[in-house]
Amino acid sequence: MSAEASAVRVIGLWPSPFVIRVLIALKLKGIEYEFVEEEVHLGKKSELLLRSNPVHKKIPVLLHHGKPISESLVIVQYVDEAWSSAAPAILPADPYTRAVHRFWAQYIDDKLPPAIRTLRGSDDGDKEQAAGQLSAALQLLEAAFVELSQGKSYFGGDGVGYLDIALVSYVGWVRALEKIAGVALLDQAKVPNLAAWAGRLCAHAAVADAIPDADKFVEFSVKFSKPMNTGAK
Amino acid sequence: MSAEASAVRVIGLWPSPFVIRVLIALKLKGIEYEFVEEEVHLGKKSELLLRSNPVHKKIPVLLHHGKPISESLVIVQYVDEAWSSAAPAILPADPYTRAVHRFWAQYIDDKLPPAIRTLRGSDDGDKEQAAGQLSAALQLLEAAFVELSQGKSYFGGDGVGYLDIALVSYVGWVRALEKIAGVALLDQAKVPNLAAWAGRLCAHAAVADAIPDADKFVEFSVKFSKPMNTGAK
Repeated sequence: MSAEASAVRVIGLWPSPFVIRVLIALKLKGIEYEFVEEEVHLGKKSELLLRSNPVHKKIPVLLHHGKPISESLVIVQYVDEAWSSAAPAILPADPYTRAVHRFWAQYIDDKLPPAIRTLRGSDDGDKEQAAGQLSAALQLLEAAFVELSQGKSYFGGDGVGYLDIALVSYVGWVRALEKIAGVALLDQAKVPNLAAWAGRLCAHAAVADAIPDADKFVEFSVKFSKPMNTGAK
Repeated sequence: MSAEASAVRVIGLWPSPFVIRVLIALKLKGIEYEFVEEEVHLGKKSELLLRSNPVHKKIPVLLHHGKPISESLVIVQYVDEAWSSAAPAILPADPYTRAVHRFWAQYIDDKLPPAIRTLRGSDDGDKEQAAGQLSAALQLLEAAFVELSQGKSYFGGDGVGYLDIALVSYVGWVRALEKIAGVALLDQAKVPNLAAWAGRLCAHAAVADAIPDADKFVEFSVKFSKPMNTGAK
């Protein structure tokens, strides 16, 4: 392990969208890191996690020279600001566009996780209703994409930005849920621009490694049908 | 109304902590604004609000030259970034300290509103339990204050910062709840540093006007015992 790698550690679990977005931000900036994987079993949280995030005891935690940062969107902003000289910039430069990205990122974290938990069976609830809520959210995000991307590849325009990272982190689960629940969600016919965006972004070098194949999520979902209780925000 | 005032409008309601934090940020930066008050009555939202925040239909909305921004913490960051040349800076300069402020601001918005709604009777729930949750959150914030302020006046050090704004916006309600529910919350004996901080900050010129007297909140709470459904994040 190089000195550079040990300077940045991420405590996480591969299936967590919140962890995935931290990895994408680091890969995008070309920052080496060490991934410290938590065990999946309920109640068996590592000493390192408990010490690093004593308030929530949840992943992900970024350790930078030992100093812990929690909450995935806080971490992504930290990565952008602490490595501000490393291209690309993650947050848009224009204050209004930054605000719009932050607004939608918060919308995503309000709406997607409850619907996803219900659909994968880790939370109780009406699955049909959850699929409807997820589809409605994706419809709004389709419209937001058209407005923000202005014909370019990403929410961030020509480059991957904050909102791209916030949303793409859920794509692995959404693809898995399409298989598990047999519903069309991120679908060419329903949200054509968003479906094309997801295809493009998942092929991006910084994203491809961070998001495992949908089948791996399906397998995980079958194996652990109850919540891990280590996933967080 | 001057041209400067009409350039910035805030759609809100005076008792909302989320509105209060927007007003404090604007006052702190010395930005003139026009306050556009929503009606309290359930279901009677203004056309301006519905048009400006079609996703959530909630206050506060900041209109800057007609362009709408929603979600209070997004607005506070926008004010800091759009008027970056107007002192003081609201977000700390150091990336790690910024991350810590953002972490606690999110903690506050996760923990305080549900407990406050139960205690004021606008949500059902066990009031004793809610008071316990609120007290526990304030205890953690007391410790965070000691660590972040390092003997200075505010979470932001010598100046009022992001986390000061995020938390002080609830002080009017907390003081009112102490009267309504007869419980000690922001109390000298329980959270001495935070109690002194609240006293100091509520006397600050940018804050004093934005937070009405506790009695006004008590009166409001008696008059409108059910949720307004216009308050937001």
